[in-house]
Formats: sequence, structure tokens, C-alpha cells
Amino acid sequence: MAMFNKITIVGVGLIGGSIGLAVKKKKPACRVMGVCRRELSRRKALKFKAVNKATLNFEEAVSRADLVIIASPVGKIEALAGRAVKSMKKGAILTDVGSSKKQIVRRIEALASKKVNFIGSHPMAGSDKSGVENADGTIFKGASLILTKTKKTDMKSLTRLKRFWRSLGCRVFVLSPERHDSYASLASYLPHAVSYALSASQTKDSIKLTAGSLRDTTRVSSSDAELWSDIFLSARGDVLRAIKIFLKNLKMIEGAVKKKDGKKLKQILGKAKKIRDQIE
Amino acid sequence: MAMFNKITIVGVGLIGGSIGLAVKKKKPACRVMGVCRRELSRRKALKFKAVNKATLNFEEAVSRADLVIIASPVGKIEALAGRAVKSMKKGAILTDVGSSKKQIVRRIEALASKKVNFIGSHPMAGSDKSGVENADGTIFKGASLILTKTKKTDMKSLTRLKRFWRSLGCRVFVLSPERHDSYASLASYLPHAVSYALSASQTKDSIKLTAGSLRDTTRVSSSDAELWSDIFLSARGDVLRAIKIFLKNLKMIEGAVKKKDGKKLKQILGKAKKIRDQIE
Repeated sequence: MAMFNKITIVGVGLIGGSIGLAVKKKKPACRVMGVCRRELSRRKALKFKAVNKATLNFEEAVSRADLVIIASPVGKIEALAGRAVKSMKKGAILTDVGSSKKQIVRRIEALASKKVNFIGSHPMAGSDKSGVENADGTIFKGASLILTKTKKTDMKSLTRLKRFWRSLGCRVFVLSPERHDSYASLASYLPHAVSYALSASQTKDSIKLTAGSLRDTTRVSSSDAELWSDIFLSARGDVLRAIKIFLKNLKMIEGAVKKKDGKKLKQILGKAKKIRDQIE
Repeated sequence: MAMFNKITIVGVGLIGGSIGLAVKKKKPACRVMGVCRRELSRRKALKFKAVNKATLNFEEAVSRADLVIIASPVGKIEALAGRAVKSMKKGAILTDVGSSKKQIVRRIEALASKKVNFIGSHPMAGSDKSGVENADGTIFKGASLILTKTKKTDMKSLTRLKRFWRSLGCRVFVLSPERHDSYASLASYLPHAVSYALSASQTKDSIKLTAGSLRDTTRVSSSDAELWSDIFLSARGDVLRAIKIFLKNLKMIEGAVKKKDGKKLKQILGKAKKIRDQIE
């Protein structure tokens, strides 16, 4: 039996579209509706079969849903969630898929008050690409997904949402929004910041060499600049803390190179390699 | 017709073994001999069919070759090239596959004097793995390869070596050792240094999230710590210059986040994305 009768996805882009495709395949809901802002996006959502139905009528679509998923860029989540709360059924579940959580969860919990059960979601799945044309229902398989838990969290809704994401293949972790942003700042925001800085450092000629190392380390800097600008600002404190930690480590490497201290350098790199080797 | 009669590869590890496999397949030489330091490596080189013959007798193996390729870690290239020059035929070609070139080329050119024609090679192909068991003859297909040219370079040998690497599938660029190190410092040394610093910044919990961005950006920090310590030190000046450029770019991002300057931040990230999008 499906966990939800109707799911509404607000924003049918890469992530929203991928959720739609996965839901249609794994059936944790009977029906999945997509809300688009423009007629062109609505037609694309249907063309790529990402949802059962697509509409421009935001209020109507969210009013019927048991679960509303805001899949918009981070900068727009709060405003859309505010609109959704007004029209949603009492007791329905609201979530988002934004990459930062502390600010978003605090503000939306205040908006949702006791009418709607809000829980933040962050699927660690995605792509440097965007748009429903690049949506892929299989990206959640094995992907880490964080659900946020606070004093205000409704435990029954948390359990339902956990089951929902698991049904799409996610490995679900439950964390406070604060811990989420602290971990994500190292595991996601920092790699993006560093990757953008690395690309910014290249020249016409260094790019021509296209070493594999450059290709890998800069891949994520092909991600949307506005989206990541919003994420960095919404998790500002954690981003700055992560950059500080990184700078300390890079400066240790720089210092050992400066001093021609091969022993120390080998030690630093060896320790980093050990950490890396735990990742896969 | 083969370009060379006999090729000798000194050090049959990941790169040396991959060259051997590619030579056996593409036949730019009639025979390829591997020189190993230990009996165990010799047996492994033969087991993985990376060379036609493998020996521990360095002097004998290089004395017969028309082309000697030093495929040892960067820290050992100069010493091995010095030994090779003593036993090589007059007029034979000597090359290495080290990732840094300025210091190596200057020193080996001095050793080679007029007996042997030395030209530095740097294939931008490789892996974070090592050992002949991970060798792969196809890694050169489409890979950039830099050959060094100086006032002392014998042009006939340069042409022969260019043809040799092209026969394995490489896109060959000819650069002065100085320009090589300058470009490679941005395209290869810097991504490695940054990747090691990024891994060093992680915690047990941030690793658990295994975001794709973290996996990609840290992949190369799984590379051998001693090898990269040697590369960083042998191209010290260029590495430090590249780190400085990178720090300036990262600090611009940090500054915009600090000041909550979304417009500036978006501009910086957008510019970096544009550079990145030229890579593939």
C-alpha cells in the first residue's frame, strides 16, 4: 500500500523531476502532482513524464496533498513554503530538499506552527546539471539523505517521511539542523567553494592540459552559480568555519613546501590520504 | 615499421606497466624490456604481461635500448637517469614520465651531455592507484602529453619521441620545462594540494555523508603521499605560486560570504563556472 495518497512537488527541475520519476516507479504514493511556475516548464515536466499531472495552480495543488515537497532553489524555499502552509490540509507533511537547513528549518517551523508538520530533507544526490531533462529517478539509490529533527518535530511525520525516502533508495540520517549544516559545510559546501576557487585560478593554457585531477576537482564548480551563492549565504556561519579549517590545512601544506620539509609534507599528505581512503 | 627496435622501461609500476601494455599493442617498438628493482616486481611485470621481458640487470637492459623511459617516482628519476646515461648507447633517446620538469630536465641534460638525447615527457594520465596490477594500456588514448624542449634538445629525437607518444594515443604538446611547470602547477599540482587539504579537513561524520561533491574533489588525494611530496618539492616555486593564486580566489569567495554580498558572490561563482565549462 502506498504511504501517501497524493504528493505534490513544487518545482519540477532536476531534483523535483528525479523525485517524481522515482515516486512513479517505487509507488510510495498513488499520485504525484507537479507545480510549475511557467507553462513551458509544465509542458516539459509532462514531456519527460516526471509527474502524473502538472499544473500552474499552486494553491490548488498543495491543498490536496498529503505530502508537499518544495524542490526549488534554496533562495526561494522559505517564500514557497509560506505560501504552501496557507493552503495545505491540517496535519499534512511539508518538506524541502534544500542543501542548507538551519535557517530554513527555523523559519519554516515558525510559519508552519501547528497546522502543518514541517521536516527538512537534504538528499545528497544531484548533479552539476539542471532541468527536468536531466532528471533521473535512480539518483537516490544509495544516496545519503538527512532529515532534520527539532523540539517541534512531529515524530509520526518523521517516521512517515523516513519511510518515504527509504522507499526511493536513500540511506536516511536524522540530525538536528545545526549538526546537518556543520557536517554539510565540510562534506558539501566546502568542496563546492574550493572547486569554484580552483576553476577561477585556471588560465587558457592550464585548461588545455585537461589533467584528470583538474577535471575531477573542478566538476562541481559547473553547478549553478545563483543556487550556490544562495546556499553559501543561507549557511554563512558554517561555510566560513569550514573555509577556515580548510585554509589551516592548506597552509600547513604550503608551509612544509616552503621549508622544503619533505618528512612533514609526506606526513600531512599521508594523513589526508588515510581520511580519503575511508570515503569509498 | 616500428619506430624503435628496443625500448627499455625502468620501473614497471602503474605508468611503466601501462606504457609497456600500450607499446605491446600499438607496436611503436619491436621489443619492450622492463627493469625492476626486486624479483617480486619482476615476476609481477611478467604475470601481468606488461613487457616482453623483465630483468633486474639495469645496466644490461639500458645498454641495448634505443629508447629508455624512466618511469620511477619523481624523487628517483635523476639518480636513475644518471646511471642510465653511463650504460646507454651513444645517440639513444632517454626520457622520463615525471610530473615536474624544470628541475629534472636541467639536471638530466647536464648529465646526458652529448652522449644521450634527453627529452622530458609528462603524460597527463594516471590514477590514484598504483602498481602494475592496475596498469592499463588505454590510459594514453586522448591524454595530453607534454614534451620538453630546450636549447639543448636534439630536434630529430624530439620528432621521434613525439611520434612514439602519438602512436600510443597521446595529444602531444611541446613546451619549455618552465612553461610546463607553470601550467602543470595550476592544472595538476594545485588540484592535488587542494584535494589533500580538503580531505584533511573532514571529520568522521562529514565523511559518512559521502556527498558526490566530496568524493569527486578528494579523489586525487588518494594518490601516493611520498610521490606527491616529491613532486611538490621538485616544482616548489611553481607550486607555491599556484597556491597563492588559489588563496586569492578562495578569499574572494570568503569575503563575499562574510559581507553577505550575494551579487558579488554570484558573479565570482559564475565566472568560475564559465572557466570550468570550457574544460570538457
